[in-house]
Amino acid sequence: MTKPYTSMTMAELAVIRNELNKQYEEFQELELSLNMSRGKPSPEQLDLSRGMLDILGAESDLICADGEDCRNYGVLEGIPEMRQFFADLLGVEAGQVIVGGNSSLNMMFDMMASAMHDGFPGYTPWGKEEEKPQFLCPVPGYDRHFSVTEYFGIEMVLVPMTPEGPHMDIVESMATLHRRIKGIWCIPKYCNPQGITYSDAVVQRLASMKPAAPDFKIFWDNAYCVHELTDTPDTLLNIMEECRKYGHEDRPVQFCSTSKITFAGSGVAAMAGSENTLKNFRRRLSFQTIGPDKVNQLRHLRFLKDMDGVKAHMEKHRQILAPKFAVVMRFLEEELTGTGAASWITPKGGYFVSVDVMEGCAKRVVELCEQAGVTLTHAGATYPYGQDPKDSNIRLAPSFPPVEELEQAMQLFCICVKLAAVERMMDY
Amino acid sequence: MTKPYTSMTMAELAVIRNELNKQYEEFQELELSLNMSRGKPSPEQLDLSRGMLDILGAESDLICADGEDCRNYGVLEGIPEMRQFFADLLGVEAGQVIVGGNSSLNMMFDMMASAMHDGFPGYTPWGKEEEKPQFLCPVPGYDRHFSVTEYFGIEMVLVPMTPEGPHMDIVESMATLHRRIKGIWCIPKYCNPQGITYSDAVVQRLASMKPAAPDFKIFWDNAYCVHELTDTPDTLLNIMEECRKYGHEDRPVQFCSTSKITFAGSGVAAMAGSENTLKNFRRRLSFQTIGPDKVNQLRHLRFLKDMDGVKAHMEKHRQILAPKFAVVMRFLEEELTGTGAASWITPKGGYFVSVDVMEGCAKRVVELCEQAGVTLTHAGATYPYGQDPKDSNIRLAPSFPPVEELEQAMQLFCICVKLAAVERMMDY
Repeated sequence: MTKPYTSMTMAELAVIRNELNKQYEEFQELELSLNMSRGKPSPEQLDLSRGMLDILGAESDLICADGEDCRNYGVLEGIPEMRQFFADLLGVEAGQVIVGGNSSLNMMFDMMASAMHDGFPGYTPWGKEEEKPQFLCPVPGYDRHFSVTEYFGIEMVLVPMTPEGPHMDIVESMATLHRRIKGIWCIPKYCNPQGITYSDAVVQRLASMKPAAPDFKIFWDNAYCVHELTDTPDTLLNIMEECRKYGHEDRPVQFCSTSKITFAGSGVAAMAGSENTLKNFRRRLSFQTIGPDKVNQLRHLRFLKDMDGVKAHMEKHRQILAPKFAVVMRFLEEELTGTGAASWITPKGGYFVSVDVMEGCAKRVVELCEQAGVTLTHAGATYPYGQDPKDSNIRLAPSFPPVEELEQAMQLFCICVKLAAVERMMDY
Repeated sequence: MTKPYTSMTMAELAVIRNELNKQYEEFQELELSLNMSRGKPSPEQLDLSRGMLDILGAESDLICADGEDCRNYGVLEGIPEMRQFFADLLGVEAGQVIVGGNSSLNMMFDMMASAMHDGFPGYTPWGKEEEKPQFLCPVPGYDRHFSVTEYFGIEMVLVPMTPEGPHMDIVESMATLHRRIKGIWCIPKYCNPQGITYSDAVVQRLASMKPAAPDFKIFWDNAYCVHELTDTPDTLLNIMEECRKYGHEDRPVQFCSTSKITFAGSGVAAMAGSENTLKNFRRRLSFQTIGPDKVNQLRHLRFLKDMDGVKAHMEKHRQILAPKFAVVMRFLEEELTGTGAASWITPKGGYFVSVDVMEGCAKRVVELCEQAGVTLTHAGATYPYGQDPKDSNIRLAPSFPPVEELEQAMQLFCICVKLAAVERMMDY
C-alpha cells in the first residue's frame, strides 16, 4: 500500500519530489506534443460513418414521409421519419420533437434566447422579469452550458454533483425558495465530465419538486444517451414520463444529437418538449429559418435506420473507445491509488474522465503537463466563469489520441498530479 | 389597342364583366389545383445538383485547407476554401466571410439578434437604446425580412422602391434625421419581388450617405447575385468597395447562400462584413455553436468548384426558368396591356414577377384565383405586417409549377385581374 502524502514527513516528501522531478524532466526531453483536451471523436470513429457520405446518390428517392422533397425548402420541424427517430431515442412522441441543424448546442442557445425574449405561454419572458433570472448549474459541468447562460446574463447558482446526480436537497431548497431560479442544466447520462448517470431518485425528485417559478425548466442535455463503454449500461428514467406523473410535463426540454454517433460536425440535432413548452420556440423558429437540412436527415436515417441500427453502430464506437478509457483508468489506479493526490469516478459511458486532484493543484497540474507537451482541458473549465473554487477538477478527454499517445500522456499526467501534490504539501 | 377600363362607360364595363365572369366560371369547372405562391426551385432544378449527393464517398479526402477533418468539430467560421468561395461571390476578402449552416435567413436573424443584444463595438446594443430602433424597409419587399424585424420589436419605416432601387431622397432624409433608424434591408440584385437591380447611383448614395446613427447598417441580402434570366445581366456595384471609398466599411453586412444554386433546403449560407462589424457576432457565434456543417461545405466546393462552375451551373437553371418567366410575361403583355388593370416590371433575373393591380384589388384577385384553384402569394405579403396600404401588389412565383400549369394559372390570373378591376370600376 502506498502511504498517502498527507501522512508523510517533509523528508519523505522531499525524496519523492526529487524522484518525480527526475521523471518529469525525462518526459520534457521527449518533446511530446499530445492533446487530451477535447471531447472529439477520433478519425477511426469518424471512419465508422464513411458509408453515410454517399448513401444518397443520383438515383435516390428524396421524398420524405409527408411527401415533401427533402432538397427543397420547408418542413420546419424536420422530416416526420427523423422526428420519429429522435422520439424513439428520447422516449417521447414524434409530435414533441423538433429536428434542427448540426448542433444541439445551437438549439439550447436558441431555446434560451426564446425563453429570454418570448418566455413560455402565460408567463413573462425571462429577460423581462424585474429580477435577473438564475439557473442552477451542477458542478463540475459542461463549460458550453455555462457560457450560454452567461451570454444571456442569467446568473449561475452552483450545485454540487453527487455520485447520483445533482445534490437534490440543495436543488429543491434553492428552487423552492427563489422565484428567480428559472431552471437547471442537466446532463443526465454519463455526464460531462464525471460520467455519472442520474439515479431514479434524482430524476423523480427533479420531476416532482415544486419550484417557486411556475415556468421552471429542466434543460436535459442527453448528449451521451447511447454512448456506452461497458456491457452493463446505466439506466436512466424517462424524464418526460416522470414529469407527467406529477402534472409537470411542461418542465423538461430535452436535447440530443448524432454528433458523437456519426460525424461530430455534420450530425443532426433535435430537441423535445411538451406542446406548451415548445410553442413560442416554434413561433420563433418560423421567423428564423425556412427549414433545416432535410437531406442530411434523410442521409442519417438511411444509414442508421432505427434504434437497433444505432445500438449496433455505437458498439463499434465502444470497441474503439473502451480501450482508451481502460488506459486512463489503469494509470490512475496504478499510479495514484493510495497517494491521496487524486480521486476519480470510473465512467461507464460518455466521453470524459473527471479527476479531482489535491485542492489548489489543478492549475499547476495542467501547467506542468503543458510544459512537458501534453495539453489538457484548462483547469476551471468545468466551472462557471472558468473558476473552480477549489482549483481541483481536471477533465480528461481520452477519445481523440491514439492508445500509445494516451499511455504517454497518462504517465506524464500521473507524475504531474503527484508532483503538484507534493509541492503543495511541502508549501504548507 | 385595348381601351383602358377607366375610359369605359358603365355599359361597356358591364359587357366586359359578363364576358370575364363566363371565362372565370369555365375555369372553375376545371377544378384546378395549382400553386404559384412560393419562390421554390422546381424538381428539375434540384435535379441539376443530384451529382452533389455522392460527390463525397468512402475514399474521399475530407481534410480542409487548414488541415482540419471536415467531419469533426470546430472551424467556427467555415472551412478556408468555402470562405474564399463566398468571398469571390460577394467581392470581399475571405477573412471577412463567415460561412454558416443551410440558411442565410438564419444568419440575418442571428445578426439582428446580435445587434439587439450585443450591438457593435463602441455603441450601445440596439435593444438597450432608450428609443425603439427603426429599420428602413423598401416596399414591396421580402416578407421574411419584415418578420425578422418585427420579431425583435424593431419598427419598420416604409420606403418606396423606384425602378433604380429604394427611393434614395427618402432614405437619405430619414436616415439623416432620425438617430433611431439603425439600418435598411436591401435585396440589391433582382430584388424580391420586383426583380429590380440597384443602379450605381443608388449604391453610391447608400455608401456615401451620413446617417444620424453612427452604427447604421445595410443588411445586403444578395440572394439572387448569380440568378440570371437573360444574356445581358444587370451589373451591381460592389457595396463593400463603395463604402470603403467613404470610410464606411463598417456599414454593410452581406448575406447570400447556395439555396437557389444547389438545394434550397440543404445549401450553404454565408455572410460578410468588416472585422469591426462582425466582431460581436463572432463572439456570439462562439457561444452558440461549435461549428457549421463542414462536410456540406466540402460537398458544395467539390461540386461547384469556383465562380466559373457556379456560372455554368446557373446557366442550366436559366434554361429551366427563363421559359417559365416568358410565359408569365407573355400573358401579362397579351392580356393586360392597355387595360389599365395592372402594371409590372420585366425582371432580368431572380425568382419573382411583381404585378401592381388596380388599387384596392389585390386581395380580390388573390381570392378569385384561390376560388378557381390557383394559389398565389397572399396579398399584402410584400409589405410589413402583411398590410399593403394600396392593396395593389401581387407577387408571382413562376419557378415551381411546370410550364403547362403556369399557362393555365396565368390565363386565370389575367382574367381575375381584369375582373377585379371591372368590379372595382363599377363599384364607384
